[in-house]
Amino acid sequence: MQQILQRASSTARTSRTLIIQQVQRLLSTQLEFTKNNFKVTRGNFHSLDEHHVEHFAGIVGETNLIMDLSDLEQYNVDWMKHLRGNSKLALRPKTTEDISKILAYCNHHKLPVCTQAGNTSLVGGAVPVLDEIIISTSRLNRIISIDETSGVLVCDAGCILETLDDELHKHGLMMPLDLGARGSCQIGGNVATNAGGLRLFRYGNLHSNILGLEVVKADGEVLDLMSSLKKDNTGYHLKNMFIGSEGTLGVITKVAIQCPPKPSSVNLMFLGLQSFEKVLQTYKRAKTDLGEVLSSVEVMDAATMQFIGDKLGSKSPIGEYPFYLMIETSGSNQGHDEEKMTNFLEYSLEKHLTLNGTLATEPSKIKELWKIRETIPESFHKDLYVFIYDFTMPHQIFFTLVDEFREFLGDKARSVFGFGHMGDGNLHLQIAIDEYSVQLHEYIEERLMKRVHELNGSISAEHGIGFLKSKYLPNVKSANTFKQMQELKSLLDPNGILNPYKTVYMQK
Amino acid sequence: MQQILQRASSTARTSRTLIIQQVQRLLSTQLEFTKNNFKVTRGNFHSLDEHHVEHFAGIVGETNLIMDLSDLEQYNVDWMKHLRGNSKLALRPKTTEDISKILAYCNHHKLPVCTQAGNTSLVGGAVPVLDEIIISTSRLNRIISIDETSGVLVCDAGCILETLDDELHKHGLMMPLDLGARGSCQIGGNVATNAGGLRLFRYGNLHSNILGLEVVKADGEVLDLMSSLKKDNTGYHLKNMFIGSEGTLGVITKVAIQCPPKPSSVNLMFLGLQSFEKVLQTYKRAKTDLGEVLSSVEVMDAATMQFIGDKLGSKSPIGEYPFYLMIETSGSNQGHDEEKMTNFLEYSLEKHLTLNGTLATEPSKIKELWKIRETIPESFHKDLYVFIYDFTMPHQIFFTLVDEFREFLGDKARSVFGFGHMGDGNLHLQIAIDEYSVQLHEYIEERLMKRVHELNGSISAEHGIGFLKSKYLPNVKSANTFKQMQELKSLLDPNGILNPYKTVYMQK
Repeated sequence: MQQILQRASSTARTSRTLIIQQVQRLLSTQLEFTKNNFKVTRGNFHSLDEHHVEHFAGIVGETNLIMDLSDLEQYNVDWMKHLRGNSKLALRPKTTEDISKILAYCNHHKLPVCTQAGNTSLVGGAVPVLDEIIISTSRLNRIISIDETSGVLVCDAGCILETLDDELHKHGLMMPLDLGARGSCQIGGNVATNAGGLRLFRYGNLHSNILGLEVVKADGEVLDLMSSLKKDNTGYHLKNMFIGSEGTLGVITKVAIQCPPKPSSVNLMFLGLQSFEKVLQTYKRAKTDLGEVLSSVEVMDAATMQFIGDKLGSKSPIGEYPFYLMIETSGSNQGHDEEKMTNFLEYSLEKHLTLNGTLATEPSKIKELWKIRETIPESFHKDLYVFIYDFTMPHQIFFTLVDEFREFLGDKARSVFGFGHMGDGNLHLQIAIDEYSVQLHEYIEERLMKRVHELNGSISAEHGIGFLKSKYLPNVKSANTFKQMQELKSLLDPNGILNPYKTVYMQK
Repeated sequence: MQQILQRASSTARTSRTLIIQQVQRLLSTQLEFTKNNFKVTRGNFHSLDEHHVEHFAGIVGETNLIMDLSDLEQYNVDWMKHLRGNSKLALRPKTTEDISKILAYCNHHKLPVCTQAGNTSLVGGAVPVLDEIIISTSRLNRIISIDETSGVLVCDAGCILETLDDELHKHGLMMPLDLGARGSCQIGGNVATNAGGLRLFRYGNLHSNILGLEVVKADGEVLDLMSSLKKDNTGYHLKNMFIGSEGTLGVITKVAIQCPPKPSSVNLMFLGLQSFEKVLQTYKRAKTDLGEVLSSVEVMDAATMQFIGDKLGSKSPIGEYPFYLMIETSGSNQGHDEEKMTNFLEYSLEKHLTLNGTLATEPSKIKELWKIRETIPESFHKDLYVFIYDFTMPHQIFFTLVDEFREFLGDKARSVFGFGHMGDGNLHLQIAIDEYSVQLHEYIEERLMKRVHELNGSISAEHGIGFLKSKYLPNVKSANTFKQMQELKSLLDPNGILNPYKTVYMQK
């Protein structure tokens, strides 16, 4: 204990105004920072002292209290390695009761916290901005029950998405959501961000699939909103208030989720198309012809394929085209699904909707094709600096922004490319530049966010607002709506200790 | 105007404590009341006077201000004709702005309101309890847009569900929800109650399908939460707060909803089964074999069939069995779907899961079979008094309550029967008695609600809490959860003018 206290007392005092630091390139032992992209004024909080640390050690035990700076690194730095927090303490509680005690204490002593699940946020939602105490949910990892008849999974919030999916497969079920970060993201974090991903098109979003939650409020009170029932209209649907609240209204500790049967037949088609007009026509036809078995419609443009070709050596399996579509079906009868796919492909080629296409029905071939899409994020870590954006756009103008910004940026960008979940209107727009500069960042981002809003899009489809988009939120919401969000925040977290400086936070 | 004022001044003064009245049988010119089933203390509100009426006339126009007692009848009495409110004024606004002005005024003057859409609530959610001013949404009935590519419908809250469905059919789409009251219920009321119905099993609930709402708050402020985007993670998901809030947090005025393609192939199977154990096995097999085309699984017991046989002359098309299942598929390929159904039926008969069954593939035959299920509510109006309950029960014990209460009531009930949406675990339990008595009502209901909760069910699956179940809500929620609901109510409606005496309302 002595050692802990000693370390705690060496905690640097945090000045009231700090600059949050944006890393230029990959994190190495010494980071280069730009200083003036985000300016944050520290909230009216107390600073951590040795008495606090001693109290926390009594709750989680000394081994689950992390204060060593190098050990803290993984908690302070985000997945993209673009952001670094300055937390001096991470706690690893095991139970809801632990979290309840921690929050009650933090709320009483006005100590800010940052709840961290798998730390895979792409908007800086999961790392501390300044000196927030990190509450890691990783040890809340029990699978509590799986009901094969109802398809309901009940588990702790810290369970890893892929682990849950693997476990469900043994029962003929699967998670209703899947995303690239599946190997490290946690279900509690997924719920807190209302994560989307590859299966949303078919299985709906978390507002539909989450049946129950257990949530600890800022003051430590435990809200038992658990239910394993598909229909439950008893009073206000409080659980939905916490879905997508990004750790700013409460800490999610348990989850009950409706899981669909694992499909026995999966097929994937890779198509090359002449224009976005043809992409739209093909998409519409797929919705009719493939109907209920359609499970994914992903699109990418030629620039995306070229970028991942350059960086990772990936190649289109059917030659080069202006646009590519990946259309997946998931069903219960391989013969029927294959026939639907073949008929659809023949029709598309015959009517010149599609220029070329290949159909994969073997799992290994399907996996190979999916790899092209799934390795896109890997390419961002190669060489250049890539701005990553996540928008929803109306279907008719899905690629308009990509064209506009390619023209607008001209030589300033090495590449402007777009891909995404066509079925959900979810565009991932990427801008690769040779060297990071704050000026260029602001030049691009301010204009981009404004333009998305003008075009009736959403500045965040599935990544959330977190820290990085918080300054744009007031611009895209009506004053009344933003005020209502802030009132909700004040109701649930009057001291503002939960994940401060994020989502609906406003500089005072 | 003179006439209006005169009528207003004759408004009876409302005493502070009133007894809400429950009708014994069908409403006729003179009603018989029982007096002591519910006791409600009038809230701290002002009473309507001539100045108020004059003000409202200025907003909606005299023709849309209803004060004639016989004209008010349809607004004061609920669909089941079990409840009668005592409102002296119904307003028929045309626009969001009208509603905003009405609410701002009511909030300022502490005048309670009851928003009424199609008046098809089965829990007294849509009629005034005492003298609330009725705000009818019937004139907010514009379809604003239908986008065939994205499948998004945008409309006013007062549009009738069936009208929307019919209009969508012209565009190859359909509503993601359907219920018996489709011909008169309004989409705004559906959203306010988080209505379930026949399509929820396949297409998910309104928390998933509603993309945007426009809501007027108690103080008249308009919250623009409209969006036509499937994915939108920008700040708190405020719209979800209003879904299922039963008119107590705000008045819904516009709706954007995601609509699926209308299936080109529909098939329906009617099965007779030996036991509930076999029902469960068949249901589980149907989920696997019919997978993605499965669109409805309805169950009923022999007592249900006997009851509707006695009352309406309905008959099972396959002879008499202890249980019946109706399994519907909706898909895009008739050949494929029929083959799946035939294989499933053959398997079920061969393995003795099912004793007998018939498959309908023709629309007229399908309609005929559905009629058996859909006319059940009609039978409630014949002769006896029927208590109607709507629960979710865990699948394994779906019919346990029916058996228990049949035994418990013995001769006291003419019939105890159960049917419902098996796929969602949603049981409609009905108890038919020869003559209504308050004692029997309380005797049954108190025990029933307690038992549902003990068995981990929900006391309201899809009907909501409304007025009739409000006294049971605190018993089935943790104290923290109930308090949180009340705090949310206070935040959004500090004067408590919106739909008082309902949902989270507590006697003081």
